[in-house]
Parts: sequence; C-alpha cells; structure tokens
Amino acid sequence: MMNTDSIVKGKLVCVALNDAEQLAALQQTFSEPPHKAAPTQPVLYFKPRNTWSTDGATVEWAQGAEDMVVGASLAVVIGEQCCRVSQAQALDYVAGYSLMHDFSLPEKSYYRPDIKGKCLDGSAPVSAKLTPAAQVADLAQLSVVTQVNGETVSEFALSQCERSVPELISTISYIMTLEPGDVIAVGFKGERSPVAKGASVTSAIAGVAELTNTMGGE
Amino acid sequence: MMNTDSIVKGKLVCVALNDAEQLAALQQTFSEPPHKAAPTQPVLYFKPRNTWSTDGATVEWAQGAEDMVVGASLAVVIGEQCCRVSQAQALDYVAGYSLMHDFSLPEKSYYRPDIKGKCLDGSAPVSAKLTPAAQVADLAQLSVVTQVNGETVSEFALSQCERSVPELISTISYIMTLEPGDVIAVGFKGERSPVAKGASVTSAIAGVAELTNTMGGE
Repeated sequence: MMNTDSIVKGKLVCVALNDAEQLAALQQTFSEPPHKAAPTQPVLYFKPRNTWSTDGATVEWAQGAEDMVVGASLAVVIGEQCCRVSQAQALDYVAGYSLMHDFSLPEKSYYRPDIKGKCLDGSAPVSAKLTPAAQVADLAQLSVVTQVNGETVSEFALSQCERSVPELISTISYIMTLEPGDVIAVGFKGERSPVAKGASVTSAIAGVAELTNTMGGE
Repeated sequence: MMNTDSIVKGKLVCVALNDAEQLAALQQTFSEPPHKAAPTQPVLYFKPRNTWSTDGATVEWAQGAEDMVVGASLAVVIGEQCCRVSQAQALDYVAGYSLMHDFSLPEKSYYRPDIKGKCLDGSAPVSAKLTPAAQVADLAQLSVVTQVNGETVSEFALSQCERSVPELISTISYIMTLEPGDVIAVGFKGERSPVAKGASVTSAIAGVAELTNTMGGE
C-alpha cells in the first residue's frame, strides 16, 4: 500500500483552481458568501505520503465510492532549497519536470478542505522519469493530454494557467520552504475526468513525460 | 531550517474544530451559507515537512506578521500500519503519546484551507519523548496546559474534545492509511493563544509530555 519508490521525497503540493477558464466560470459562485470574492492567492492542497505512487501502478478504487475522477498536471520537482525567491529566480531551483495523476472523489464544494476526497491511498502517482529543467525551453508551450482507455478525455495547455510556474514557486516559497525532492503539481484542468473501475489512464506531456495507471476495483 | 530529527516520520495530521465549546459557539456561523450546517466529519489539516521541529527549538517569526498564535495538542504517534480500523481496535495501533505545538498566523476564516497561516517553517514542534501507550490508562483524564513566559494562558481537557482519540483514529484510517511514525494532533482549544516575539512557550500534559519553544523575531 505504501509506496517508497516515489520520486516525491518531502512534500507534494498541488495547486487547485489554476485553470483560467474555470475561474472565469466560477466568478458568480465566488461573489456569494462567505468569500464574496475570488481567491487572491493560489489555493493549495497536500497529497500526503500514503497517496504517493508511481508510473504503472494500479490505483485502488476508493472503498464505497460510486465515482472517481482524475486530473493530470505537470509536476515540478525542486532541486535546491528554495525560500522566498523571486519569480525571476524561481526556475533556478527546479531539478526537472515530470507528470502527476491526481485521483480523487468528485468534488462537491469549494469551501472545505477536501481531505477525504483527496487523500486516498495511492491516489497520487508521479512518473519517476525526470526531464531536466534545462531541456524544457518554454513551459507555456506544454500541454497535458489525458486518455482513458485510449480515448482523449482532457487537454490542458499550460498557457491556460491563471498563475505561471515561476509565480507559483515564488509565492509558495514565501509560504513554506521548499526542499529538494518536493514536488509541485502546478495546475489541473478545472473539469476533472471521470474514470471507471478497471480503466487505463494515460497522460502525456510531449517530450517531457508520460504516465499510465490502471484503476482497481474489478 | 529543515529539521530532520523530528519524531514525525510520515505525515502530521491535525484535527481542527475539535473543541466542543468552540463548536457550540460557532453554531450560528455554521448555519449560514455556504455550509448551512456544522461539519459532520472531523476537519483535518496537514503540517508538512518544512514545519516539523522539536522540543527546545526556536520558532521563526513569520516574515511580515504582526501576530502569531499557538495551540497545543496531545500528539498520538502511530506504531503500526492502520487502515480502516474500528474505534474499539484503534488504540492498538498507537505507539505512544507526545505533545505538539502548532504555531500559526491568527485565523480569519473557517472557509478556506489556511495553507499560508498553517505551513510556516518550523511551526510544528513535537516533543521527541514518547510515553508508551501502555502507560496511559485514560486519555479522557488528560489535560493540556500552556504557559507563555511562565503564565498559564490555556488549559484544555481532552474530555472537552467533540471527538475522542479512538473515534478520530478510526475515522482518519478510513480516509487514508496511517503508517508507523505518522502523528495525529487530536485537538486544540478553540481559542489559540497569542505569542509575542521572544516569548517562551511551554506546554505540558502531566505525566505524559512537556514541550518548550522560544519565539524568534527579536
């Protein structure tokens, strides 16, 4: 159950609500109580150690769950201790890039930290293959494509992120020190993709990473 | 900055809103949108690796912060892998008990996961001294007392917890597998205590644990 061969060594931080289209669509909701405004800071959540997993792993079906969903994100792997860095310097602290699947229960609300839906055992596979930072010239050109059983269900261009990778690294580094082996999943398409029991889920970022998992439950 | 000698090995899970008096006082707030009801499940948050620290450590003053607060909690240290256990069996998975300080920025809202306020570097000291589970006969008899500069500022009886330790271990073990070295901070007094720069903060659970930290910033 516990995966010790994850590429993640310290903490796995995910950025929610970083799809600019989704944010635009949620403006009305955000204007209601209790917030009465859109988030002014990135909304972060953790995938704790029991969630860490790898390429090729079978993902346990959540007990009693009717539905599960998946999102895929570029995974930024930190290479050097990184505390209160500027956006201009941020990418200097990156060892390289990989790809993450975030399996979860469908989200019902944006108002409570969704520990139950997000912290399922083995729900955060990250490919162990790292593409060195120096080999990726322009992050904004990348796109994350997800296929379920061979059919494309989601495509998310990183240019569609409300906040860029350097901005996120900088902001997060002011909140908490990042260490080598920490991983930031920088953004998911707002709409997560449904997955069925036994489904094969493959995501790819051309030239950077690929990740395949199989859903359990059958 | 990074503490590697923490008693925490896997994840540090904290339970918010477990003070029955605080919950009663918040009933009105909970009845308003968007929730319109009190939480039906324990509200959890993580203190990630960059927060882990120890007895005797100086706690960095949060950059730019005017105020900081502290809460103290019994720290339940897991001894065996623990997945979907009953309340009756829950304590069998406990290695022992310790004490945790949770330093944070004052909380302004109960509606967003407060990553910025809760994930400050070194803000989660846990005493490395473990009192074996077998030596603690009745958890409900314990009380966490916190002193700032020698003056008692907070006293929190574990009997005042809305949810008991066995109930929490059981519930959390259905959400995520707990591993040896995982720690659960089971409950804090609703009202956190203000701390000033340079203050000495000592908490104690009689016969179980003691923990002293000094605030930085001077």
